[in-house]
Amino acid sequence: MVEQEFLKKLTTKTDSKIVLLVMDGLGGLQNETGKTELETANHPNMDELAKKSICGLSDPISPGITPGSGPAHMSIFGYDPLKHEIGRGLLDTLGIDFEFTHDDMAARGNYCTLDEKGIITDRRAGRISTDKNIELCKKLDGMVIDGVKIFARPVKEHRFSIIFRGKGLVDKILDSDPQKEGLKPLDAVATEKSAGFTAEVVNKFIQKAKEILKNDHPANMVLLRGFSKMVKLPKFQEVYQLTPACIALYPMYKGLARLCGMEVINSGDTIETEFQTLKDNFSKYDFFYMHIKQTDSSGEDGDFQRKVKIIEQVDKSLPVLTSLNPDVIIITGDHSTPAVHAGHSWHPVPLLIYSKKCRFDKVQRFSESDCICGGLGRISAKEIMPIALSNAGKLLKYGA
Amino acid sequence: MVEQEFLKKLTTKTDSKIVLLVMDGLGGLQNETGKTELETANHPNMDELAKKSICGLSDPISPGITPGSGPAHMSIFGYDPLKHEIGRGLLDTLGIDFEFTHDDMAARGNYCTLDEKGIITDRRAGRISTDKNIELCKKLDGMVIDGVKIFARPVKEHRFSIIFRGKGLVDKILDSDPQKEGLKPLDAVATEKSAGFTAEVVNKFIQKAKEILKNDHPANMVLLRGFSKMVKLPKFQEVYQLTPACIALYPMYKGLARLCGMEVINSGDTIETEFQTLKDNFSKYDFFYMHIKQTDSSGEDGDFQRKVKIIEQVDKSLPVLTSLNPDVIIITGDHSTPAVHAGHSWHPVPLLIYSKKCRFDKVQRFSESDCICGGLGRISAKEIMPIALSNAGKLLKYGA
Repeated sequence: MVEQEFLKKLTTKTDSKIVLLVMDGLGGLQNETGKTELETANHPNMDELAKKSICGLSDPISPGITPGSGPAHMSIFGYDPLKHEIGRGLLDTLGIDFEFTHDDMAARGNYCTLDEKGIITDRRAGRISTDKNIELCKKLDGMVIDGVKIFARPVKEHRFSIIFRGKGLVDKILDSDPQKEGLKPLDAVATEKSAGFTAEVVNKFIQKAKEILKNDHPANMVLLRGFSKMVKLPKFQEVYQLTPACIALYPMYKGLARLCGMEVINSGDTIETEFQTLKDNFSKYDFFYMHIKQTDSSGEDGDFQRKVKIIEQVDKSLPVLTSLNPDVIIITGDHSTPAVHAGHSWHPVPLLIYSKKCRFDKVQRFSESDCICGGLGRISAKEIMPIALSNAGKLLKYGA
Repeated sequence: MVEQEFLKKLTTKTDSKIVLLVMDGLGGLQNETGKTELETANHPNMDELAKKSICGLSDPISPGITPGSGPAHMSIFGYDPLKHEIGRGLLDTLGIDFEFTHDDMAARGNYCTLDEKGIITDRRAGRISTDKNIELCKKLDGMVIDGVKIFARPVKEHRFSIIFRGKGLVDKILDSDPQKEGLKPLDAVATEKSAGFTAEVVNKFIQKAKEILKNDHPANMVLLRGFSKMVKLPKFQEVYQLTPACIALYPMYKGLARLCGMEVINSGDTIETEFQTLKDNFSKYDFFYMHIKQTDSSGEDGDFQRKVKIIEQVDKSLPVLTSLNPDVIIITGDHSTPAVHAGHSWHPVPLLIYSKKCRFDKVQRFSESDCICGGLGRISAKEIMPIALSNAGKLLKYGA
């Protein structure tokens, strides 16, 4: 596997265009019918494309490893996910248009419900409305503790971002969210000595928040996780010489795309508006990352049929994309989220790469079992970008 | 490929059970009938399992590299064999219950036959009986040379272990065994300056042994190889949070298993008693490494039909294993030992991983040619453990 530093020397600017369509959690598992979600779905447009493409399976991190969406996306974008760790707090915060500085440390927050004994009875406070969330964040926003300014910003439903701004903050802190109900919230513990002051500030904030929210049942407490400061990633512009755009509906994915240098385009609210956004902006960029969230959410919910329907819905919109004639089209997932598993999993992810220059294989249908026999074989997701760039004529020869 | 240090952070203790069945040297090559040993053998139970499993091929080290059993096993156990080199002397010695200390250096010994000119005419001294071996080891045992105490311990037939015990021994020494007949035994040569004293002691021992054995034709000389001191491996308990057991008949494999933290269970003398041992101890451990030696020995002997028979014999016992309903079953070899090649080879090894959570493929028969089209593709043997752990629910998600 080559490093981005190596690739960087070979990239060249051209007019060709690449579209990377990521159906989050695309990979599945067979249910009682013996077929996966992708095998069950009717997706003639993807199949038509598969016939002219090269297919295979990809591992987001390494065989057997189940990734979160953060590291899984890093891989697809060609970054080594073990080298560039992106905390959840940072990701969520980048997704909400907050002006994040190098003095800032963010955490992902959940409003939760505590009972009289201080035990968590609902980690999501009954998924309170976003309006209620906005109201609660106003109560917590603007505090200053030991010289550290605190920002509380709503995300969606029970989810919010907390940003601590001050000199010398260190993000080596364990989550206060125990990730289980029936337990008490944890103290934020520093895992390195240098993070001692930061942990103190965080714990003081948590105590104040508890006090402030005590009468706001069911959202009477906060749980924080994924403490993270800004990371500096090489940008798509410099590494790949691309002018990249992001078409996504969910904050986290927009945030990740921004970190990589992508411009985030307003993409409406639905899968259809996402495809329309691609059409409307096709002339302005040479790389498009399109993200479909619902394949993952339905998988997480264990809803096999809904995931099938989402795949079919994407397929119906696919001609909007193909009729634009991009030079390279990639269809894949960031990881697998099989409905029968109701969560992210380690299974490799179906992958299709179309270009006029690909050496197409015998795959006639885009599915896990067909991709096994595809010409790409089983590759690391980090290898998708180099293959796409070469197919787009954007990578020069290495050596004489 | 992720490192064990990385995996360690993701492992979690559960009640699920993993059985790893290693048929040593399993991979084969087609003979004049056009079929390999595994393709020729009748193994309905393995095939039945293959239908519910995910199959593939694995490379013990890297494509094209022929491994010894030591590094090949390291890979299957999830260790990087290039990082953790295990000398043959150490392995053999660990297999015979010798109390090995950090002051010890071991070598694998062969009793051999020299002619009047000092030329090796038989590297195995006609495979003398183990009783004769015991008698000869008594003659060599207990010597002290330059303050270094020497232990001679019989293994089996012509094979024995020599252990040198003293301060400052360094194992950077070349073999005295030229691995060929028609040559004289070699001097033990230090490859690093720090091993000069050790090499001297070894050469003095070899000369004394020659003198002592001169009238013991055909076993009138010793050949030493694989000089090795103790290595410290991360244990299965700490890396994988497993409680592992080893079911094996041959010393070397028991020794290797012990190095990894496995408890070695007395397993009788036959393939059948090995399976019975699994049954009898199934409740006590959550990971079982079962080793079948005879597939390798028959391959080494170039005996195609005997290797076929051994595979069929293992298949007959397989229901003892499957009826225990382990959560994960792995069937593979440590490397290939094709009978037509009469030795270890570089060919990738057939691999089957069964679990209720595997995304099964179209493989209907467990064989090299079927495994090529399996859903695992061609992976590194080091990836078997992460995949098995995930399938057993023993690996947490990486990142958010």
